[in-house]
Amino acid sequence: MKKIGVFTSGGDSPGMNACLRAVVRGALYYGIEVYGIHRGYRGMIENDIHKMTSRDVSNIIQRGGTILKTARSQRFMTKEGREKAYQNLKNLEIDGLIAIGGNGTLTGMKAFSEEHKIPFVGAPGTIDNDLNGTDYTIGFDTAINTALEAIDKIRDTADSLERGFFIEVMGRHCGDIALLTGIGGGAEIVMLPEIVDDLDEIVESITQMLANKKTSLIVVVAEGDELGNAEELGEKVKEKIPKFKFRVTNLGHIQRGGSPTAADRVLASQLGLGAVEGLLSGKTNVMVGQLKRKLVYTSIDECLKPRKIDNELIRMLRILSI
Amino acid sequence: MKKIGVFTSGGDSPGMNACLRAVVRGALYYGIEVYGIHRGYRGMIENDIHKMTSRDVSNIIQRGGTILKTARSQRFMTKEGREKAYQNLKNLEIDGLIAIGGNGTLTGMKAFSEEHKIPFVGAPGTIDNDLNGTDYTIGFDTAINTALEAIDKIRDTADSLERGFFIEVMGRHCGDIALLTGIGGGAEIVMLPEIVDDLDEIVESITQMLANKKTSLIVVVAEGDELGNAEELGEKVKEKIPKFKFRVTNLGHIQRGGSPTAADRVLASQLGLGAVEGLLSGKTNVMVGQLKRKLVYTSIDECLKPRKIDNELIRMLRILSI
Amino acid sequence: MKKIGVFTSGGDSPGMNACLRAVVRGALYYGIEVYGIHRGYRGMIENDIHKMTSRDVSNIIQRGGTILKTARSQRFMTKEGREKAYQNLKNLEIDGLIAIGGNGTLTGMKAFSEEHKIPFVGAPGTIDNDLNGTDYTIGFDTAINTALEAIDKIRDTADSLERGFFIEVMGRHCGDIALLTGIGGGAEIVMLPEIVDDLDEIVESITQMLANKKTSLIVVVAEGDELGNAEELGEKVKEKIPKFKFRVTNLGHIQRGGSPTAADRVLASQLGLGAVEGLLSGKTNVMVGQLKRKLVYTSIDECLKPRKIDNELIRMLRILSI
Amino acid sequence: MKKIGVFTSGGDSPGMNACLRAVVRGALYYGIEVYGIHRGYRGMIENDIHKMTSRDVSNIIQRGGTILKTARSQRFMTKEGREKAYQNLKNLEIDGLIAIGGNGTLTGMKAFSEEHKIPFVGAPGTIDNDLNGTDYTIGFDTAINTALEAIDKIRDTADSLERGFFIEVMGRHCGDIALLTGIGGGAEIVMLPEIVDDLDEIVESITQMLANKKTSLIVVVAEGDELGNAEELGEKVKEKIPKFKFRVTNLGHIQRGGSPTAADRVLASQLGLGAVEGLLSGKTNVMVGQLKRKLVYTSIDECLKPRKIDNELIRMLRILSI
Repeated sequence: MKKIGVFTSGGDSPGMNACLRAVVRGALYYGIEVYGIHRGYRGMIENDIHKMTSRDVSNIIQRGGTILKTARSQRFMTKEGREKAYQNLKNLEIDGLIAIGGNGTLTGMKAFSEEHKIPFVGAPGTIDNDLNGTDYTIGFDTAINTALEAIDKIRDTADSLERGFFIEVMGRHCGDIALLTGIGGGAEIVMLPEIVDDLDEIVESITQMLANKKTSLIVVVAEGDELGNAEELGEKVKEKIPKFKFRVTNLGHIQRGGSPTAADRVLASQLGLGAVEGLLSGKTNVMVGQLKRKLVYTSIDECLKPRKIDNELIRMLRILSI
Repeated sequence: MKKIGVFTSGGDSPGMNACLRAVVRGALYYGIEVYGIHRGYRGMIENDIHKMTSRDVSNIIQRGGTILKTARSQRFMTKEGREKAYQNLKNLEIDGLIAIGGNGTLTGMKAFSEEHKIPFVGAPGTIDNDLNGTDYTIGFDTAINTALEAIDKIRDTADSLERGFFIEVMGRHCGDIALLTGIGGGAEIVMLPEIVDDLDEIVESITQMLANKKTSLIVVVAEGDELGNAEELGEKVKEKIPKFKFRVTNLGHIQRGGSPTAADRVLASQLGLGAVEGLLSGKTNVMVGQLKRKLVYTSIDECLKPRKIDNELIRMLRILSI
Repeated sequence: MKKIGVFTSGGDSPGMNACLRAVVRGALYYGIEVYGIHRGYRGMIENDIHKMTSRDVSNIIQRGGTILKTARSQRFMTKEGREKAYQNLKNLEIDGLIAIGGNGTLTGMKAFSEEHKIPFVGAPGTIDNDLNGTDYTIGFDTAINTALEAIDKIRDTADSLERGFFIEVMGRHCGDIALLTGIGGGAEIVMLPEIVDDLDEIVESITQMLANKKTSLIVVVAEGDELGNAEELGEKVKEKIPKFKFRVTNLGHIQRGGSPTAADRVLASQLGLGAVEGLLSGKTNVMVGQLKRKLVYTSIDECLKPRKIDNELIRMLRILSI
Repeated sequence: MKKIGVFTSGGDSPGMNACLRAVVRGALYYGIEVYGIHRGYRGMIENDIHKMTSRDVSNIIQRGGTILKTARSQRFMTKEGREKAYQNLKNLEIDGLIAIGGNGTLTGMKAFSEEHKIPFVGAPGTIDNDLNGTDYTIGFDTAINTALEAIDKIRDTADSLERGFFIEVMGRHCGDIALLTGIGGGAEIVMLPEIVDDLDEIVESITQMLANKKTSLIVVVAEGDELGNAEELGEKVKEKIPKFKFRVTNLGHIQRGGSPTAADRVLASQLGLGAVEGLLSGKTNVMVGQLKRKLVYTSIDECLKPRKIDNELIRMLRILSI
């Protein structure tokens, strides 16, 4: 292997730049040339591909977003688009790829590598923590800290005005953001896509907490909760507990951005270097991740299976919210 | 004057605690006893009033929210409620009041003091910056910094994905939060309640910016904009510029909380002490504020008049967003 | 077991309050009474011990420091002091203890439990990450994020003025703060107590980086580095590379405080609940910790042995700082 | 005037980039070409001067440091250096200059313009707030907020361990950083270069506070205090009050960096645009500033005179620290 390409794709996540820096410098360390592909699959098709030096990734480890930009490409969904992309890589003699992104990115890469023989390693760059093969995805730690700071601010109001708040956080299929910010934010209740909730039970639980002299309440709701989003849930609970005042707020897009935390920078660096070393050692069709603090490579198929929620954390949250 | 009461009322704002600390320590410095009235007018009616010492306000200058709690009281809207409140104050021999809050608080206080002869000075504790008689209200600087941090995070995504964002910030009647976060956030457009916007002009303006090679766009919308909220505006613009992708996000309640900034702590301290010194010097039915860096007392009636937007700042934003 | 005591001791660390909250609520969940001992061993001797309710730990999960206060007690070093402490616990019928602190705290607790038969479980509350039996101590993640934010700020100056900076972080015997903030901060070099450095090699290395077009440099130095502190090292390097300008700064006590990060709040909650459940299940003379994401109990003796540095991280840092 | 040059010089300050953005876009708005001079006077001599477009200053308003870099130039202190610099400007037909920096920068610019007839306007880019002609310099608000966050963290430890802290902040001749962070941080005492302190009085004051049940203490010391730096002062006070434990910490270089606050971004934008408009309207040998919220131009000589401390703030701090 002499030349590799690297790109970021899908929604941006904090730490993508740190990961990119590790890929570039890791590859250069091993004497490999690195090409940055701009705007993910779109740039691959449009031949927006540029050789990178060690200095190109100076002073980016602390930056949110991605200097390579990212995009969603319809054309890459077509055979023709992928063919074009492959020709561009071949012309540049790129013989390995590192894809930094979430499940959409990995799914695309898998399809691509089945058609065109080019080895690749994926790195989990997404705030959603919805992939197997790694305990944490790159950006997740930053996202929960951002959400937590927001919840801390809202709690000032909840506490001063003695109100309840339904706070919606990201997570369509995976409740990890909701669960961890719920625990960290001292939330009374969290509502997750993975757990089937019973509205009556929740109302009962809130009623008891108020009886137990709680004067403010935080309910963290994952956007993909099966009972509905925070707005809908809030309305339903307000109806059943009219005496206590509830407000609803949706943290929205602030969860994606910002300077990565220490943990995300370190993880992103480890996975970026690990992706390079995996590729060089002959691995392909895998994602690099960290499980129980150990670097591992897991097949893309395995990574894309639904992830299980940590029941022990749910048990703890229930004990501590009394 | 020997005993004064102090309370926080209405929505909480960062710096209320710093202001309270200055009121308590300022009064004690002049040999005056201070009573903290909990939950604003509600506590006044329910006699939830407690003598405060210098230590009671230790280590609170940095805290968001208000340790005295706040509430909205229906009963204080009635003559009976105000009568009860007055009796409680009289029983405790409280002969002066300091009210920390926004326009609702000041309006209530004005009504109260017309019925019952008790001198009072108001302090502008609200993030909305919607009062006359002060350049900045307590909490405004913190709110715009909070909003700005959020916008900076969103810009990471806007820039990486090359999208536009409609970001809604607080401000029902006053566009100051939108205007200043718009300037500070490098927004391309701000939409304020005070300015009548023309949707076609905005669409034209955005179209030109995109032609001018802008690859991301931030539009900051005050919640009270006369053309609609961010959601509605976003939909309208998306229809007219289908080629470019827009997202909408509402910063919501995070804008009220958090540890106050340096400027808010200093201002809150100055106005808290100023409220005490004003009351002691015989002022009443006024709000203490700071205009052009000078401490001033302005009649409540004057303070409640609509505030004018700073046209010079609007001019600047338009020049700098090219 | 019917009544347990809990205390924080030694230097404060962010997350101590979150851990305390989990201890109190965890114990109450199991029907155990909890007593808070103020100022660590000093309060144990002075009988400054108070029964705690679930509400006493409301709204503290996000607070730095410790609401129980902490202290260093000379008298507890004497047999007489420990005897007095034991009598106070006995009088209150406290039959189990949870000690939140670092190696000094655990050492003290071990001596105490050898003399006086009272079961105890320790929880690692220290920013230093210098204990075995847990991958991370409570407060470490917050400390490295605080240090990292500081380094990011300093890098603005390093980059603008094209200077080098020697930045000293905490860590007398354990270089983990230096190592992880070094990686996260994109430092060129880290200097750790566990690694014997050669000044000539470092000078050579810096010289090469400057030749390699680096225009700014960050060297993170653990306070306990065997070559000297940042001040001393800075002076030595300045002498040898007079052409390039270096500055020295010591991050100091800011590393101990602040609101805990998400990871620290979650870890502190897990270890607090784990301490209670360990104590109830008959464990004693152990510290609760988390290894490879699993809750474990390790003997105090084992925990106090010197901790090994992660050589893989050092290898990575060298590759990525080119 | 058809072409202007802009540069940043001296120590970097947060908001320099925001100011630069306003200069570039302001000039382009008026049809003026703008040239960025890299590394201040050094780049002027070395002809490191580049034409700037509107896009060159995109997405920099939130960045600390300065994208133009800054430097200190020995050669510009010589007549020969200044002559060379002037020739370079003349060759490019640059007929006006905007200098963003502190008192060193303005002093240099004044000397330069006396020798070589080129109009210039200065903008106060320095965290020190040590210039006349503006209430606040660009970067000052960010610096005091950074210092305040640090003090808040240190207070967690001061409060938990019941200690006193001597905290040194920047300010060689001007005590504004110390004064405002002292007020905002709830410090008990501030020590400023402008005020002659009496050590005995300070010791007496601290002794009384401890008698008055203060359990922790913060003393903020400006680096230029006439009684010595924090280290020296701490030692002297420790000797006189051996019973209470004091620690010393120096906030150091973190005060210069970081993303600018809302107030700094707005001020920097106003002064950047004001500099352009001043230059275009024929002003020279002046600094643009903001006094009592009004844009003003003040002669460089006047700006360089020593600035007076605000005695009213000192009076307030003494009242509120009881």
